[in-house]
Amino acid sequence: MPDPIDFYFDFASPYGYFASLRIDELAAAHGRTVTWRPILLGAVFKVTGMKPNLEQPLRGEYLTLDAGRIARLLNAPFTFPDSAPVNGVAASRAFYWLADEHPEQAKLLARALYHAHFAEGRDIGPADTVAEIAARSLGSLGIDRAAVSAALQDQSVKDRLRAATDEAVERGVFGSPFVIVDDEPFWGWDRLEMVDRWLATGGW
Amino acid sequence: MPDPIDFYFDFASPYGYFASLRIDELAAAHGRTVTWRPILLGAVFKVTGMKPNLEQPLRGEYLTLDAGRIARLLNAPFTFPDSAPVNGVAASRAFYWLADEHPEQAKLLARALYHAHFAEGRDIGPADTVAEIAARSLGSLGIDRAAVSAALQDQSVKDRLRAATDEAVERGVFGSPFVIVDDEPFWGWDRLEMVDRWLATGGW
Repeated sequence: MPDPIDFYFDFASPYGYFASLRIDELAAAHGRTVTWRPILLGAVFKVTGMKPNLEQPLRGEYLTLDAGRIARLLNAPFTFPDSAPVNGVAASRAFYWLADEHPEQAKLLARALYHAHFAEGRDIGPADTVAEIAARSLGSLGIDRAAVSAALQDQSVKDRLRAATDEAVERGVFGSPFVIVDDEPFWGWDRLEMVDRWLATGGW
Repeated sequence: MPDPIDFYFDFASPYGYFASLRIDELAAAHGRTVTWRPILLGAVFKVTGMKPNLEQPLRGEYLTLDAGRIARLLNAPFTFPDSAPVNGVAASRAFYWLADEHPEQAKLLARALYHAHFAEGRDIGPADTVAEIAARSLGSLGIDRAAVSAALQDQSVKDRLRAATDEAVERGVFGSPFVIVDDEPFWGWDRLEMVDRWLATGGW
């Protein structure tokens, strides 16, 4: 069994959302699985000196147009959230709280959070909102809002997210989505076709 | 006859180079022509607060890898130039000197300059180098190096490049390549497939 491919993303990233809709299916077509790794681009930008796309003059306006255009092309449910760029700390912590023991449910939660934000336009920044969405998505695990809220304040969960972001920077991750296939890095939703080809051919 | 599509690029941009290899053929397949518009991203970055990709930590290294990977995929001649990111002032001025009276030769020159830089790895920053390449490419117009060198110092040519860059910013251009089809903006080499589809369908 070959290693999983790594899918780094920020919950604030619409391009990460679009990639999340396809990455598992894409990998599965080549017999690969995907390890999801939410990160905080805000911490990455401190290394690279960059700013969120939305806050860059000209690029912010383009991003809004481009994301809507991609959503229509993919026929993906999409609303540009008023809360963009959202703070993904609580959402990412909730993911890592689950990731080791319940990796599939962690992905399920990530999909639910992305959907709430980019399909329904909800602000997924507040811990209470994340707890509500998690309790609803993970009812089968017997998880309630209080358990999620407690986990979001757990120091080991906080540390886990910080370590994940640090590790991403060490691997050269500087944007979202960012896919690494056997040490080969691919930045951007628009590189998924190339990831597909790389997986099919083993590289060129 | 529909309006030409606009192709904005910086001579320092490898993604602009890759786009230059395809944009005319792509447009022609839909009965469209292309107006080439070199600009200076350095001036654009003063508006957007960004830096050249190559000078951004992490992203610079990725750019080098990604550009080589695209070149191999396209089977395009490519060397990452030691002089990158090159100063495109002289190259862009030479282009605009020709663009009104000899638009096809201006494109020919742009292709020759891009080829010299990204296929042969030459530093196309110095005015002497641009003059040499222009004289060789444009021999059929009876243009010699001295004529190009004089043109590069012509105030009206300098003003023309400045106006082209200002106009690009006014239209929302913030990167290279940047294609505008009937007011619809597309940023990046990786949007050419989408440009193709937009031209085929009239948009979605």
